[in-house]
Formats: sequence, structure tokens, C-alpha cells
Amino acid sequence: MLLEMSSLVESAIYRSITAVVQKDENLAHDVLRNEGRINQIEIEVDEFAISLLALQQPMAADLRFIVSAIKINNDLERMGDLAVNIANRAISLLNEPIVKPMVDIPHIAALVQGMVRKALDSFVNRDAELARSVLAGDDAVDDLRNASFHELLSFMEQDPANIRQSVDLLSVVRNLERIADHATNIAEDVLFLVKGIDVRHHAETREGSRPVDASR
Amino acid sequence: MLLEMSSLVESAIYRSITAVVQKDENLAHDVLRNEGRINQIEIEVDEFAISLLALQQPMAADLRFIVSAIKINNDLERMGDLAVNIANRAISLLNEPIVKPMVDIPHIAALVQGMVRKALDSFVNRDAELARSVLAGDDAVDDLRNASFHELLSFMEQDPANIRQSVDLLSVVRNLERIADHATNIAEDVLFLVKGIDVRHHAETREGSRPVDASR
Repeated sequence: MLLEMSSLVESAIYRSITAVVQKDENLAHDVLRNEGRINQIEIEVDEFAISLLALQQPMAADLRFIVSAIKINNDLERMGDLAVNIANRAISLLNEPIVKPMVDIPHIAALVQGMVRKALDSFVNRDAELARSVLAGDDAVDDLRNASFHELLSFMEQDPANIRQSVDLLSVVRNLERIADHATNIAEDVLFLVKGIDVRHHAETREGSRPVDASR
Repeated sequence: MLLEMSSLVESAIYRSITAVVQKDENLAHDVLRNEGRINQIEIEVDEFAISLLALQQPMAADLRFIVSAIKINNDLERMGDLAVNIANRAISLLNEPIVKPMVDIPHIAALVQGMVRKALDSFVNRDAELARSVLAGDDAVDDLRNASFHELLSFMEQDPANIRQSVDLLSVVRNLERIADHATNIAEDVLFLVKGIDVRHHAETREGSRPVDASR
């Protein structure tokens, strides 16, 4: 069920970004239409996890696996919500001209989609190395986000006519960054699951504390 | 432990907003300083929940309570992160003049803080009626958010000098809205806990689907 959910979420992210970049209204509506299925699976996964806990009384590794599944389930559903946000921005941006600051968005999106894929693969394969590589990717997303924010602010200041579009694009970047945060959460849960260590709120491969959600 | 965590989170939200509105740098730094304690409790709650599941093999109502606690724990920690985001915006806004669009922010903040308090009280007292009133509050937050967004967009278009401050204020509003979303999630978990019904992704007292995170 989590694999089905993650493939739906990955597809939603991909379609929402493509809808922004290629101004494709159909793809944006696909994302809105598929949200219900993601929400449905979230409930089913939780119910199934609770019934496993109740009926099987799992111990040790199985117990950690089920608790991780509940958390990852929640992260996946939130990612689906964020893809919906991006799809809504795509619809709002349909009639706006293509502008230079949009060039960053496919770069950030590719980075974030890579993090999501690695986080999910690391869960499926219980691969600690791969999970750790997701944590490292978060800094690169932050750098690109900051560059993109500065560019969009300047673009707004150049001409008030750019403001509405820029606010939408800021939102797309912010939602991508939050998707990356959820991928990081999943990777942290995988490390907890595989190695029994809790890397949340600790620097492991990166400096500083756990990334907070998009700070702007 | 969850009560300690929720009082820390409520305090963080209150201080971060007061820091924005009263331009109080010390309060903003208090929020940044207390984040570590919130993160610490989050880990402790999860570990305790897992040890309860492993050692006590709880059934039925106790099992649902523990699973709810794991989810609410996660929501509280995210609320703490969002208060940190607001505190960072407060610091960025310190040297900006007080502007008219800021008038909305204390209104939205008061509404959101009320939702957070009710959601936590409904959990402590297992009060389904109170939980339901939180779901109803979400629409009012959305309305205020939309009004505030429109005002801030116009304010930016009036004068490019207003843009940077307005982007920070948009961020404060968006983070408040996301805090309200987490309060809604907690209320949904309480209804699930108390009545055994799953209201996620269903309209109960309100129309439309589950609120997605801030859509811009």
C-alpha cells in the first residue's frame, strides 16, 4: 500500500511541476483529481497498521517497521497535499508569460524529485547509505531556494506587474522545499528503522539542526 | 510529556507572533532557543510510545490512544518549527516600519491560537464536541488569510519599497495558516480516538475536502 501511495505521490509531484513549467492545465487537473486516492490510501494504511498492532502484537523490529510506516504514510500524504498546492499555482500561472526566474524551478524540482525517490527506495530496500544521501541533498535545495528567492524579489522590484506571478512562483519554490523536508523526514525514519538510531534533530552528514519547514 | 510539549509549543507560537507585532527581538530569540527542548521531547515521546507498544501490548482503546499520541506528537513538533519560521521573519522585520496590512496578523493569530488551545484541550479531555469546533474554525482562518493576501499584494503593487516586508508578512500569515492545519489534524485524531471515526478527508462540520497546507 505504501508503494502504491508513493508512486501516486511521485507522479503528482512530477505532474504538478510539469504543469507549472509547460503551462499544461490538464496535468494540473490530473493532480487535483488524484488527491482523493492518496487520501484514501493514507486512511487504509493507518487502519491496517493499527489492526496489525492489535492482532499480531509485533515485537522489536516489526514494531519499529509498523511505527515507521505510520510516520512515512503521513509524510507521503503531506507531499501529495503540497503537489496539489503546486498544481493550483500552475493553474493560476497559466496565462502569465514565461519569465527568466522560472529557469531555477526545474533545477530545484529535479533535485527534490531525486530526494523523494531515494528516500522511498531507501525505505523499500532498508538502505541506510541511500537514506544518508537524502540528508546531504537538503543543503543543496536550501542553496537553490535562496538563490531563487533573491531573484524573484529583484524581479518584483523591477516592475509591479511582475508581483502576482512572482508570488505564485515563490509559492512553487516553497512547496518544493517542503517536499524535500518530508523526504528528509522519511530518510530519518529509515535510518531509525535500519540502524535503530535517531538522527532527527542531530547533525549527521550535515551541519546544524534538523531543517525546519520552509522558513519564508 | 505531550502536555509539556504542547505548553512549550503554545508559548512558542505566542512569542513568535508577539515578536512580529511588537518588534520584540528578545522574544524571537526565546523561540529559537526553546526549539531544542521541543525536538528533544518529540524523540522521547516516540521512544516511550514504542516501548509501551512493545512491553504492554495494549489493545483497542489504549492502542488507538498511543497511535494518536504518536501522530499528535508529530503535529506539535511541526507547529514548533512553524513558530521558529515566524520568529525568523520577526527578526527580518525588526527594522521595517509598522504598516497597515499588519493589522490583520493579530486577528489571524488570535483565531489560530484559539484553535490550537481547543485542539489540545479536546485531546486532554477526550472532548469530541470541542474537537469538532476546531474543524469549524479552519474556514474562518482561510477567509482571513485570503483577505490578508489580497491586501499585501496591493500593498506591494503600490510601491516596490514595500515588497520585501510584504513577502515576510505573507510568510507569517502562511505559517499561521499551517499551524491551523496542524490544529485541525490534531482535532481529527481526537475524533478518531474518541468516537472511533475517521473524519480525515471527509466533510463533517464543514464543506469540501480536508484543508491542504497553505496553498500559496
